[in-house]
Amino acid sequence: MTTTRRRVRMGMIGGGEGAFIGRVHRLAAALDGELELVCASFSRDPGNNARTGEACGLSERRLYPDWQSLIDGERQLPAGERMDVLVVVTPNHLHVPISQAALEAGFHVFCEKPAATTLAEARRLAATLEASPGLYGLAHTYLGYPMVWQARRLVSDGELGRLRKIHVEYPQGWLSTNLEGTGNKQAGWRTDPAIAGASGCMADIGTHAFGLAEFISGHHVTELCAALGTHGEQRRLDDDGDALFRTAEGASGTLMASQVCTGEENALKIRLYGDRGALEWQQMEPNTLVHRRLDEPMRVLRAGIDQPGLAPEALERLRLPGGHPEGYLEALANLYRDFADAVRRGERGAAAGVPGMDEGLRGMAFIEALLKSQAGTAKWTSLEDTSQRHDAEATT
Amino acid sequence: MTTTRRRVRMGMIGGGEGAFIGRVHRLAAALDGELELVCASFSRDPGNNARTGEACGLSERRLYPDWQSLIDGERQLPAGERMDVLVVVTPNHLHVPISQAALEAGFHVFCEKPAATTLAEARRLAATLEASPGLYGLAHTYLGYPMVWQARRLVSDGELGRLRKIHVEYPQGWLSTNLEGTGNKQAGWRTDPAIAGASGCMADIGTHAFGLAEFISGHHVTELCAALGTHGEQRRLDDDGDALFRTAEGASGTLMASQVCTGEENALKIRLYGDRGALEWQQMEPNTLVHRRLDEPMRVLRAGIDQPGLAPEALERLRLPGGHPEGYLEALANLYRDFADAVRRGERGAAAGVPGMDEGLRGMAFIEALLKSQAGTAKWTSLEDTSQRHDAEATT
Amino acid sequence: MTTTRRRVRMGMIGGGEGAFIGRVHRLAAALDGELELVCASFSRDPGNNARTGEACGLSERRLYPDWQSLIDGERQLPAGERMDVLVVVTPNHLHVPISQAALEAGFHVFCEKPAATTLAEARRLAATLEASPGLYGLAHTYLGYPMVWQARRLVSDGELGRLRKIHVEYPQGWLSTNLEGTGNKQAGWRTDPAIAGASGCMADIGTHAFGLAEFISGHHVTELCAALGTHGEQRRLDDDGDALFRTAEGASGTLMASQVCTGEENALKIRLYGDRGALEWQQMEPNTLVHRRLDEPMRVLRAGIDQPGLAPEALERLRLPGGHPEGYLEALANLYRDFADAVRRGERGAAAGVPGMDEGLRGMAFIEALLKSQAGTAKWTSLEDTSQRHDAEATT
Amino acid sequence: MTTTRRRVRMGMIGGGEGAFIGRVHRLAAALDGELELVCASFSRDPGNNARTGEACGLSERRLYPDWQSLIDGERQLPAGERMDVLVVVTPNHLHVPISQAALEAGFHVFCEKPAATTLAEARRLAATLEASPGLYGLAHTYLGYPMVWQARRLVSDGELGRLRKIHVEYPQGWLSTNLEGTGNKQAGWRTDPAIAGASGCMADIGTHAFGLAEFISGHHVTELCAALGTHGEQRRLDDDGDALFRTAEGASGTLMASQVCTGEENALKIRLYGDRGALEWQQMEPNTLVHRRLDEPMRVLRAGIDQPGLAPEALERLRLPGGHPEGYLEALANLYRDFADAVRRGERGAAAGVPGMDEGLRGMAFIEALLKSQAGTAKWTSLEDTSQRHDAEATT
Repeated sequence: MTTTRRRVRMGMIGGGEGAFIGRVHRLAAALDGELELVCASFSRDPGNNARTGEACGLSERRLYPDWQSLIDGERQLPAGERMDVLVVVTPNHLHVPISQAALEAGFHVFCEKPAATTLAEARRLAATLEASPGLYGLAHTYLGYPMVWQARRLVSDGELGRLRKIHVEYPQGWLSTNLEGTGNKQAGWRTDPAIAGASGCMADIGTHAFGLAEFISGHHVTELCAALGTHGEQRRLDDDGDALFRTAEGASGTLMASQVCTGEENALKIRLYGDRGALEWQQMEPNTLVHRRLDEPMRVLRAGIDQPGLAPEALERLRLPGGHPEGYLEALANLYRDFADAVRRGERGAAAGVPGMDEGLRGMAFIEALLKSQAGTAKWTSLEDTSQRHDAEATT
Repeated sequence: MTTTRRRVRMGMIGGGEGAFIGRVHRLAAALDGELELVCASFSRDPGNNARTGEACGLSERRLYPDWQSLIDGERQLPAGERMDVLVVVTPNHLHVPISQAALEAGFHVFCEKPAATTLAEARRLAATLEASPGLYGLAHTYLGYPMVWQARRLVSDGELGRLRKIHVEYPQGWLSTNLEGTGNKQAGWRTDPAIAGASGCMADIGTHAFGLAEFISGHHVTELCAALGTHGEQRRLDDDGDALFRTAEGASGTLMASQVCTGEENALKIRLYGDRGALEWQQMEPNTLVHRRLDEPMRVLRAGIDQPGLAPEALERLRLPGGHPEGYLEALANLYRDFADAVRRGERGAAAGVPGMDEGLRGMAFIEALLKSQAGTAKWTSLEDTSQRHDAEATT
Repeated sequence: MTTTRRRVRMGMIGGGEGAFIGRVHRLAAALDGELELVCASFSRDPGNNARTGEACGLSERRLYPDWQSLIDGERQLPAGERMDVLVVVTPNHLHVPISQAALEAGFHVFCEKPAATTLAEARRLAATLEASPGLYGLAHTYLGYPMVWQARRLVSDGELGRLRKIHVEYPQGWLSTNLEGTGNKQAGWRTDPAIAGASGCMADIGTHAFGLAEFISGHHVTELCAALGTHGEQRRLDDDGDALFRTAEGASGTLMASQVCTGEENALKIRLYGDRGALEWQQMEPNTLVHRRLDEPMRVLRAGIDQPGLAPEALERLRLPGGHPEGYLEALANLYRDFADAVRRGERGAAAGVPGMDEGLRGMAFIEALLKSQAGTAKWTSLEDTSQRHDAEATT
Repeated sequence: MTTTRRRVRMGMIGGGEGAFIGRVHRLAAALDGELELVCASFSRDPGNNARTGEACGLSERRLYPDWQSLIDGERQLPAGERMDVLVVVTPNHLHVPISQAALEAGFHVFCEKPAATTLAEARRLAATLEASPGLYGLAHTYLGYPMVWQARRLVSDGELGRLRKIHVEYPQGWLSTNLEGTGNKQAGWRTDPAIAGASGCMADIGTHAFGLAEFISGHHVTELCAALGTHGEQRRLDDDGDALFRTAEGASGTLMASQVCTGEENALKIRLYGDRGALEWQQMEPNTLVHRRLDEPMRVLRAGIDQPGLAPEALERLRLPGGHPEGYLEALANLYRDFADAVRRGERGAAAGVPGMDEGLRGMAFIEALLKSQAGTAKWTSLEDTSQRHDAEATT
């Protein structure tokens, strides 16, 4: 009479051969064994689609030629068989059309960032979500790291005192050369305005830096001043950018994101300074959190289910004792696990512990403000207000 | 007509609630989706066994009360249903009895280290393996790290010149206090000679350090001089030890392993020095390999499928681009993936890329030499010869 | 008949008890034995002046009550006895009056930064220097570090290709609290507009960051956008600031300097990214220079007279073999040594290897642009042109 | 009526052109301005002697052709003119003859390590010192580092609890090749038994590691087991060695020292583990001290006169605020400053804060035990007792 906790059934759009992030999602979703891939349309190229399906052990019946037929096909399956959640890992321009169709068809959606290519598009998606019974999750993987949650907790507990400064940076180097000119698929679509949207680097990784800063600090960026750059030969979108910003809660700081920092890998890093303490976290050494303190020696918190000084929200996101490094896949797996839990609990809108529409709207407002600032001559450009009704309710 | 690559079916003995390493194996085996857990006997405690089975989504039919009934039960299932490989994650004293029975019943075995509790026992197991059609793998997880393979390759390519010195260390701190006295299950059996065998720390982690040194260097330790210690109150096995050693190939060095290095997590580290260069690798930052060179600036190799300077055997063990940290679970998953490949290819004895009986015998010879050295007054103690017939063949 | 290389005779204004930087200058000047302190007016407080003079072993005769009498007194001594160079380590507002008087009296001047409190004042000083036979040096200590010279050389040699991005930061935390309210002398004058000038943090350390960026890159900042902040209670000058900037040579970047980054010590750091490579240097680990390269593993250059890969200008500034750390005092001593050499060679204007009036003017133009940007609403503010005649000549 | 604190007058034997350490001593002695070089015999080569003397600004009258004439000549000068302390920076075999003659002539001696070439010779020197009114200091530079004193204090304060393990290592790489065969002067004498004594690497740097371990721990090594090696072609002395050891106070550990660790600079490092905490210090980043604690996050102590958590004995050895790195010369300068203070205070035998004869005897006992262990077949070799009368008195 034991009832096994059921695996959440997952479909995937995108992620065929040559795509990087699709396989990453499959690995992360598999790690904890809480989701199983039951259907997909990995690629519009039938051969690619078939080969990827085979490699994933999908039955041919659940391998669809395009996203529309996947949604249609799954909708017609019995409730106990059809997918619960659709994972969208296509290039940016399809995020909203697919997400919207899936939500309208009654499915949950877990989507790669950015949520949309414009703020207006994101707002339409938000309206769809409001009207649907589904959940929407956004793959801001870095918000799945345990020490990011630990940092957030130390801030909210007041360990840093009043937050004054936030410095976040995300240098990569992989677009230092004209990679898109060599036929590289990843570089190709990310630098194509028709697919990536109006921003390149900032939409791709700047949003991660922005989201991380707002998540840990609990602050809301209200104004920014940006200088974006395009260095790759014949490149059409920004591949680099720096910004000053200010938050509603009284902090200021800098945000840097670049894909032309030659030799850099994926060096997302954040520092937060308050009048009583400071934190520093680097994604490339994610299991360490440096905590500087006024008039006391620095302490270093370390990830691990047996490590001292960690908050419950960090411990829940760890699988191993200290010194057994957990990394990027584990962070994404944490988002999947929390999303699967929310699916099973029948939640609506946002899954606890998982970035969702709020973060998506904030990210789009950030991108639009960056582009407006870049185009203008004023020092400060405001971010559009993206607060949603349930936010408003939450704060009354 | 597409033929999906089949998932290798895996059973598990041990790994119920309260056990650490069982869940780790399940996570790692799941990561790449190449194995599926089909049966288990997680614990002799029926409640624990049932709860763990449920959490893993196992059918009650394949959940066995003990290891003997699991082997018997699975043997009687149809070939297309029964498990392929038995994963043994029990305390040490059961490693050989279970492994032997499983091999004799025609199953492959993937076992936690150490392979046995004595060298004699390990030799019996080796004989069983020779006579069986099965594969035997040993969970020396650290040999699954990509940069360990990179290091091995640099050594075998002669980048270090003639190897002179090897220094390997493995400090942990979790047994600094009398943890076994508090009812901690992990500490309990690891410090109980009846279960762990004649060595505590050295069998538990010293063997990892030893195996890593021999694996990267390609050298064979022939003599050692050991000073073991027992610091925990009323503890009966070594919880710390240092050794000098010499290799047949002409290098010398030190090996340190300890579980009473207060505050240390899992700080396995190795350095190898040759007359033309040197390498340094630390498990807690596994994606970095420091390469010192005679008369040239140090270079730093970094893990990542897009990173320069990596050998094929390192690249094959990576899933992500540089800067997306992969860790301990990924390393173990590499062993599982290679083991599953060998199962599908129908190999016998040892799985390519996976530590096996040779490493198991070496580890036991190392432990016995340590204990003999500790008990004696001679400076140098020889390791027993553990070379097997197929080794001899391999080198002729 | 051997002729001993004579010690350069040095006087000092400022640097009595309670002053930090005066003793630092004395230590650095003493290190290589090329200068000797022969006269001083350490403090207007006679007791302080006397005690410091005694501690320094100065004869009472050469200990003056104020800077005017020092200049007058020394001028009247025989040429072989009177000081060669006056070291000015007073608070900022006295830098120009003393420097100017000293130059006019025929002495060389080595002054703490900033050169002046306004650009106009700095220009007047520059005119005085042009008309005098003396040398003027500015204690931009960080430009004395060997690896800073190594970095500059790698850039000028084209190892980085075309420079695209410069990120420089200088976080300190010592003014996180209202230190000036506690009677701290250092904090007191640095936060007093009447003494420090119109800028606090930016004049004190922002100029260091700016100077370092221009020195290593060889670029000239032409435009910036600044957000300065004042966080200390009742503080009247900036204690923090961030800026975007662009250079005439086509790079862009960020500059951050702060004295309210709680827990930070003196974390000056610079990164430069070109299309072929990148460099990273941190003042707190000054003997390491990270060199990232397109499509090749990172290499790490290390300071030391025996270390591979170093340029002559780095080697000349080192005293010890690799692994024997040299630090801040050694860097300042390098400036003193080069200044003393220029004195002995009878140079005029600027001492080879030592920051001087050009750097002083650049720093003041930077400060004024920061303040203008902070006060305005335009995105970009231009730096005033500070090029001097000998610059123009040099480039024709 | 002010009385200036007089500079201690210093003579030097050795340290001419081509010698490394002589200039280092001159720099360090000059740093704080408490000693002045008044006489020397830098080299038996008259040209070298003359050139070095000129570079140092020594008068020809005080430049002696050999050490005997220096001692004789200085002895005949008036008390207020003749040197106070003789600095001995010759190759090893002259340490005792010169030190002994200088002590007998009434001078203080500050000598490079090792104190002697044999223990017997060191004992004779100790007897001479007992009978003389002079001070004897030994240039164990690493014992001048502030964070070494901080570590010692944390141990003696019981912050680590009962000390269990000490691991000290000192890898260098400069003798990886046959450097002595190229005419390198430093390599030449250090590998010549007639000049260096019976040990190469261990006498040169192993003694530093040993001294550091005993100094910080307060323990006394009583037994060791050594494996020394000679890797350089045709080299006659050890250039590498590993040892196990035990202390009278109940700790055990390892000591490694090597000059053939290709690519290593000067990587002296020590770790001490107690049942309540642990410390880690690395000479190449001397301003950081890692403090691991049972059940609490690691903390990191940082050098600086304004840094929290430092003991008085550390603060007294610092000159600068946090983040302004102090290094090797500053550490040696600390020994000189303390030695000069002791000279002025008229102390006898040992200078407070400066390693002396006790450390010299311990170092020689260590070397002899290493060589005996290396030659024998017994596991453990005892160190000879070197306790001196004043030791015995001190502990009664």
